[in-house]
Amino acid sequence: MVSGLLFLYAIGLLGFSSAGVTNNRIDKFGLNNDGSCKLPDVLLKEIHGYQPIVNKIVDKVVNGEFAGQTWDRLAELVDTFGSRVAGSVQLEKAIDFVIEKMQADGLENVHTENASVPHWVRGYESAQLVKPFSKNLPLLGLGSSIGTPRGGIIAEVLAVESFSEFDKISEEKVRGKIVVFCPPWEGYGRTVVYRSQAASVASRKGAVAALVRSITPFSIGSPHTGQQHYQDGVKKIPVACITVEDAQMLLRKYRRGDKMEIHLEMEDRPMGSVISRNSIGELVGTIYTNTSVVVVSGHLDSWDVGVGAMDDGGGALISWKALTYLKAMGLRPRRTIRAILWTGEEEGLYGGAAYKEAHKLQEQKEFNFFFESDIGTFEPRGLDFVGNADAECIFREIVKLMSPLNATEFETPTDGGPDISHWTTRGFPGASLLNKNEKYFWFHHSAGDTMAVEDPRNLDKCAALWAAAAYVVADLSINIPKDIQE
Amino acid sequence: MVSGLLFLYAIGLLGFSSAGVTNNRIDKFGLNNDGSCKLPDVLLKEIHGYQPIVNKIVDKVVNGEFAGQTWDRLAELVDTFGSRVAGSVQLEKAIDFVIEKMQADGLENVHTENASVPHWVRGYESAQLVKPFSKNLPLLGLGSSIGTPRGGIIAEVLAVESFSEFDKISEEKVRGKIVVFCPPWEGYGRTVVYRSQAASVASRKGAVAALVRSITPFSIGSPHTGQQHYQDGVKKIPVACITVEDAQMLLRKYRRGDKMEIHLEMEDRPMGSVISRNSIGELVGTIYTNTSVVVVSGHLDSWDVGVGAMDDGGGALISWKALTYLKAMGLRPRRTIRAILWTGEEEGLYGGAAYKEAHKLQEQKEFNFFFESDIGTFEPRGLDFVGNADAECIFREIVKLMSPLNATEFETPTDGGPDISHWTTRGFPGASLLNKNEKYFWFHHSAGDTMAVEDPRNLDKCAALWAAAAYVVADLSINIPKDIQE
Repeated sequence: MVSGLLFLYAIGLLGFSSAGVTNNRIDKFGLNNDGSCKLPDVLLKEIHGYQPIVNKIVDKVVNGEFAGQTWDRLAELVDTFGSRVAGSVQLEKAIDFVIEKMQADGLENVHTENASVPHWVRGYESAQLVKPFSKNLPLLGLGSSIGTPRGGIIAEVLAVESFSEFDKISEEKVRGKIVVFCPPWEGYGRTVVYRSQAASVASRKGAVAALVRSITPFSIGSPHTGQQHYQDGVKKIPVACITVEDAQMLLRKYRRGDKMEIHLEMEDRPMGSVISRNSIGELVGTIYTNTSVVVVSGHLDSWDVGVGAMDDGGGALISWKALTYLKAMGLRPRRTIRAILWTGEEEGLYGGAAYKEAHKLQEQKEFNFFFESDIGTFEPRGLDFVGNADAECIFREIVKLMSPLNATEFETPTDGGPDISHWTTRGFPGASLLNKNEKYFWFHHSAGDTMAVEDPRNLDKCAALWAAAAYVVADLSINIPKDIQE
Repeated sequence: MVSGLLFLYAIGLLGFSSAGVTNNRIDKFGLNNDGSCKLPDVLLKEIHGYQPIVNKIVDKVVNGEFAGQTWDRLAELVDTFGSRVAGSVQLEKAIDFVIEKMQADGLENVHTENASVPHWVRGYESAQLVKPFSKNLPLLGLGSSIGTPRGGIIAEVLAVESFSEFDKISEEKVRGKIVVFCPPWEGYGRTVVYRSQAASVASRKGAVAALVRSITPFSIGSPHTGQQHYQDGVKKIPVACITVEDAQMLLRKYRRGDKMEIHLEMEDRPMGSVISRNSIGELVGTIYTNTSVVVVSGHLDSWDVGVGAMDDGGGALISWKALTYLKAMGLRPRRTIRAILWTGEEEGLYGGAAYKEAHKLQEQKEFNFFFESDIGTFEPRGLDFVGNADAECIFREIVKLMSPLNATEFETPTDGGPDISHWTTRGFPGASLLNKNEKYFWFHHSAGDTMAVEDPRNLDKCAALWAAAAYVVADLSINIPKDIQE
């Protein structure tokens, strides 16, 4: 059935091109006037025809010979190399390990491609409330933060809940202080600006350091790290996250009028840029080898606390092992599936940026679709999609094939694909792994990001969904439609 | 109604003594032949007659003028003094604060009673995996642990899941090693033996230190501390808890055959005993002033990590504030209600032991009933009871009065009253606060034990239940029956 359809599409009977780019189309073949989907019957039948293959993949990966392998390999990776921050020897050793094991798995065109990444090193870090009583304040310096002078600084505390509260305070009151920001959790997207901007905001009024409530809805006394950015022209001051609990305590005390001093010492230091590598392996297509590629991806780098099993070891592993399992099952689709394990994601999507730059000349021909898993590999729910209306209609059908995994939810637009946003924000279609990640930010960028978060069976289910979705997209008789904005 | 019944009981018409001790009774007035309860109608009516007073207490404490006060006072206490470990200046300052504020609240006979407590001091603590890669292992030394020699020790790792697995390993293999115990969580009671006994068990085979998986079902990279005990005759070795995640990682690596070394440095040191104080305040009874006392209690001391807001700041505060609110409402029962805020609980119930010893001569006359809250002050569910069959029948009725709090659950026997076990294990009746504490051990003895765990409204409900139950027991026309075993 699938082969017959391919021919119809190839000769254009269905009114759209079968491979490559489909720019500036007027007809939205997939939509009725009311915006609902109206796919041609032949295409619907083709997609539904993949159900037996999806079932077989799920059976082998979740219940069969591959069950547990994804978790085991992830555990071996993180137990052997630990955390994998950009610029670290551990990350480069982990990349070597991935390349060696991808080759052992029989992946094809296994290689690395260079990317320049920032090298920032956490040194000794300590924050002590020294007045009115002594209390250790666990902290994690934020990526790109400078350190304090040797011996640290001792300064009075000024605590606020929000930037708008801070705006109303005079420079005179702020000068020379350590400013504590204790914003309530309002979701990652809204709250993370405090992590990324606190130092700049505080510095503009003469603060000597900024401490931010960790960006998490729940805490057991754990600080969370992450990247921050100094705005142009501000004096750089040290910045770190403290625990939710301590930030709340400091805010309460400040509002009661308690005079407080903190001794802050941070030996953190930015070290310029170094070369890291994206790790790449393929399952080469039967028809298209280096065009219309389907990318499946996650990032191999992590923060330097915890071991990055969740962010993003799980996403990296399912992207790699999806190819391993398809190859072992003899399932080779028409188009190439390319697993890319990005580097330098945490500091600002550096691996994706380098890859985009290196592949930009042929990108419209080279890439058909981008998958990325970077928001957890808990129990899968379905796919989070971004693309044009036609592509969306096709994906709404594809996701229905995931019923054996009970993972047929479809959401759009995606917000879970940071590295592939280099392409998806310009009209390339893509998808992120929807999963039951309600607790994701409990562990994110903290010492809690370990194998304890990852469940072997859920990881199998995610790998199965990833392999099945990539296979169907890579094997369909048509490319996924796209409208590129340049 | 209540006054009339008192007379009947006092002259013995109902077949049991009205005050003091009821030893060696044959007739179980509260039980039918099948073991079900059969309380006299007059007693049932008397208990049910307290419903309007219970309703009034709930109304004032949860919805009225006292709402939020318990949380605010607890926050002030822990924000001002921080953690309150036995032997610390902070604990003694916190005791002074409680005494001053109890007096300001109008409590009566406010005073302290001395108790000898161990003084153990946590010093600098560090554990680093140094082979095969470098990783910081967050740890907390266990109460009473000795430290390492200056500069620490570096030793090879041997990791096991259980004592029974360890039993099968030869002394030769253990000698000179750091032993890691990584038992699965099987509830606190079953699992905590690893914390208390790991050093002794490991030392008997020549280990140089023991590291234990923190005693918790859930972790975000937080170590949990707690007391441990060296068995007689063993060579003392340093012992600490590491995180669940790291313990699991070390066990996996050991089972894969990875050679590992840990650099462990602990400056912890036992410092002998010092004098601390139990903090006591009363609402003196209208009839019985120093006999048939109803004790409501929690412990004021805490571990030295976090601030002990949950363990047991909440229990201590509701015990104190229950009296404050009853007094402010003009509700003075027949018997004295005595709030006792124990000291030195964490190291082994030292405050309770000293109090028992000091009050032992008259204890059967002095004490009617013991309440203790030391297992969380989350949303209340009811009461966890221990006592004889007659007392149980009475309490099954009393707990029904808590319907305005939706907290009418009754469980027996109690397992939540450590300090009052000095009496309840010998036949005195007592009760612990049943509450929705499923997450209690997530925070227990860790940096996560802070005000963030305590909810103002739940704390109000717990205080209301505590005040209402104490009032009813203290005002009933009869003492709660007991069978003392000496």
